[in-house]
Amino acid sequence: MISNIPKAIKSPPSQEELANRLEKVRNLIVQQNLDYYVSFDPVNIYYLTNFANYVHERPFILVIPKKGTMKFLVPLLEKTHVESRAKCELELSHYFEFPAPQGENWFDRYHELIEKDARVGVESAMTLRIYDQTPGNKTKTDIIDEVRLIKTEYEIGRNVHACKVINAGHKRLLKIIRPGMMLFELYNQISGYLMAKVVADIKNLNPLVSKVMAAALPPSLSYDPHNFTDVFLKMEEGGPHVSGVGGQVDGYGVEIERSFFLGTVPEKAKDPFYAMMEARRLAFELAKPGANFSEIDVAVRKVLKDRGYADKLLHRTGHGLGITGHEGPYIAAGYDRKIEPGMIISIEPGIYIRELGGFRHSDTVLITDEGNVSLTKAPETLEDLTIEVD
Amino acid sequence: MISNIPKAIKSPPSQEELANRLEKVRNLIVQQNLDYYVSFDPVNIYYLTNFANYVHERPFILVIPKKGTMKFLVPLLEKTHVESRAKCELELSHYFEFPAPQGENWFDRYHELIEKDARVGVESAMTLRIYDQTPGNKTKTDIIDEVRLIKTEYEIGRNVHACKVINAGHKRLLKIIRPGMMLFELYNQISGYLMAKVVADIKNLNPLVSKVMAAALPPSLSYDPHNFTDVFLKMEEGGPHVSGVGGQVDGYGVEIERSFFLGTVPEKAKDPFYAMMEARRLAFELAKPGANFSEIDVAVRKVLKDRGYADKLLHRTGHGLGITGHEGPYIAAGYDRKIEPGMIISIEPGIYIRELGGFRHSDTVLITDEGNVSLTKAPETLEDLTIEVD
Repeated sequence: MISNIPKAIKSPPSQEELANRLEKVRNLIVQQNLDYYVSFDPVNIYYLTNFANYVHERPFILVIPKKGTMKFLVPLLEKTHVESRAKCELELSHYFEFPAPQGENWFDRYHELIEKDARVGVESAMTLRIYDQTPGNKTKTDIIDEVRLIKTEYEIGRNVHACKVINAGHKRLLKIIRPGMMLFELYNQISGYLMAKVVADIKNLNPLVSKVMAAALPPSLSYDPHNFTDVFLKMEEGGPHVSGVGGQVDGYGVEIERSFFLGTVPEKAKDPFYAMMEARRLAFELAKPGANFSEIDVAVRKVLKDRGYADKLLHRTGHGLGITGHEGPYIAAGYDRKIEPGMIISIEPGIYIRELGGFRHSDTVLITDEGNVSLTKAPETLEDLTIEVD
Repeated sequence: MISNIPKAIKSPPSQEELANRLEKVRNLIVQQNLDYYVSFDPVNIYYLTNFANYVHERPFILVIPKKGTMKFLVPLLEKTHVESRAKCELELSHYFEFPAPQGENWFDRYHELIEKDARVGVESAMTLRIYDQTPGNKTKTDIIDEVRLIKTEYEIGRNVHACKVINAGHKRLLKIIRPGMMLFELYNQISGYLMAKVVADIKNLNPLVSKVMAAALPPSLSYDPHNFTDVFLKMEEGGPHVSGVGGQVDGYGVEIERSFFLGTVPEKAKDPFYAMMEARRLAFELAKPGANFSEIDVAVRKVLKDRGYADKLLHRTGHGLGITGHEGPYIAAGYDRKIEPGMIISIEPGIYIRELGGFRHSDTVLITDEGNVSLTKAPETLEDLTIEVD
């Protein structure tokens, strides 16, 4: 039962937590009449094992039989690393290297793990390279991604902790930002502060799933939200600036973003700000168990369209968060699915106007039994987001 | 003609440089009798366009016809970002979002770019999700990866610059490291120094392809080279410590690593250190145009085996570098291919002994017309790598 913000959790998952996740995956394996499910996506492997790798030419492949111990194929070089991080039962097999002489390749070992006539589920994120070497009758089905949509209590606790970290980082960002400050300086100060905080909080932090981001785009560029072409870019008098603090905090991804002003608010910026706020209010109102994701996005963007910003929209209302900062479910037209308690989503309708700037607040929001609660906290109104500068 | 270390280059690629890369790719497209080649791998897209994305649920797909302008399918949100970075001619097409209502999906636009009966080459790194939506008669073939094996003069200049940066970082690492220093502190100091250097050097640095790494593992853990389980780990008296400084410097990946000692050298560490040095000398001697990669790895690891370390080996002799810090070609048994001038490889035979430590130097090495030259520089001998501590 999820009713308000659960307690923050900072410790690694228990064996029981991972067994619980595996059981849900297994239920779908059986339901889909598969003998094996193969995971190559490092995010999904991390979800089930607590071991994080990053993909390079040496494959890591997790083979989940419908019954019995999971098998994990890894390069020899990483065996002790896997043993030090994995928090579940695993049968490890390894290969020496990639490339390798005939008979000693990763796929030679891989072929031994699955029978030729088995029914095998594979991820849509699997690469052709791995797919072509996968034995059996293969079906593309995203079972682990499906299970990840609804968070366990433990996962929610981790995301709560991650949000506490970035809330503090965002608070500090709003405190130190001034006209003339360079993007690079801002990034350095806030990301340094965040990493120190994360390292102090988490014993045995895993650097492979820990990264922080902190930035703000001034009004001359905030209309183009993914454009970080000039790290010497300076903050400006006025606004809207758009801030973004987020990242993956020891394996759990979250974000917070605000449109804000330094000193003065241009008259022309008020209407789009209020329009964004109206859309945002509606999104929070609608994002409740039972609601349809697609319909929410359509309704929320209709607010913006009705207020004259139809050609100023660049994206959907929101996306899921969990292990990563960008994943399903999506508040997007065409995503025809119902909201459920335990989902974590961003709410971030936006307007983007060249020569004026970007208007977007983003929060990391937990769906509760009755509605939703934002795990991120920061000022929201135009007044509170107009920062005095001297 | 490559005979010694070329000049460092810090500017983005010219249109001509990218046209030259595309021409090589096109030659293979025609040679393999394809109508189109499709690239989804962000590294390959960066190689041909200078635009870097990172893969998430919104696909970026580059379609290269055998003749005419390349087509690039991107999310609307990223259109201006692409325009600001891409340094080549591109016909952009876009979709609004993922997910999307029927008829407005990324794959609806994608299907318009390739005829149903076309012969289409795809990367082995392509995911099933993209592959299943790719029109035409598909063949898996790694054309861009193949072209990337031999660097252009411009690319070499970029890697030379990247090595200058990490050489300075490694020099500083050896200067500040002391027994008792924590891994996290070391990382912070060196990575901060490196990023400041990179940002000062490169105008319009691209943060999406810029990351630096700096670490050292003390003898109690250096036998397990990929294990960074404890960021509070302390450096120790003695050794071997193994350092690593590397990263991607505005899109070009390099590395340098050294086994070194703080104050004292344990008697038992001498023989494996000398064995590693002997193997390394042989690798430098053999890594010349015309030599076979597989044979070099076998010969180099034979040195280590003959000296009694057969069960202390964890990896091949080396790997390629270029845009990334880990790619083909490979100095690995089974990689049956000839070395050519313009390749850039790491040379890093290693020995790993539990309760003693890791023995590995790694350098980023350019293959020249006559032999090779290391782009990374640092002390090499046991004497020079025994650091006085007080």
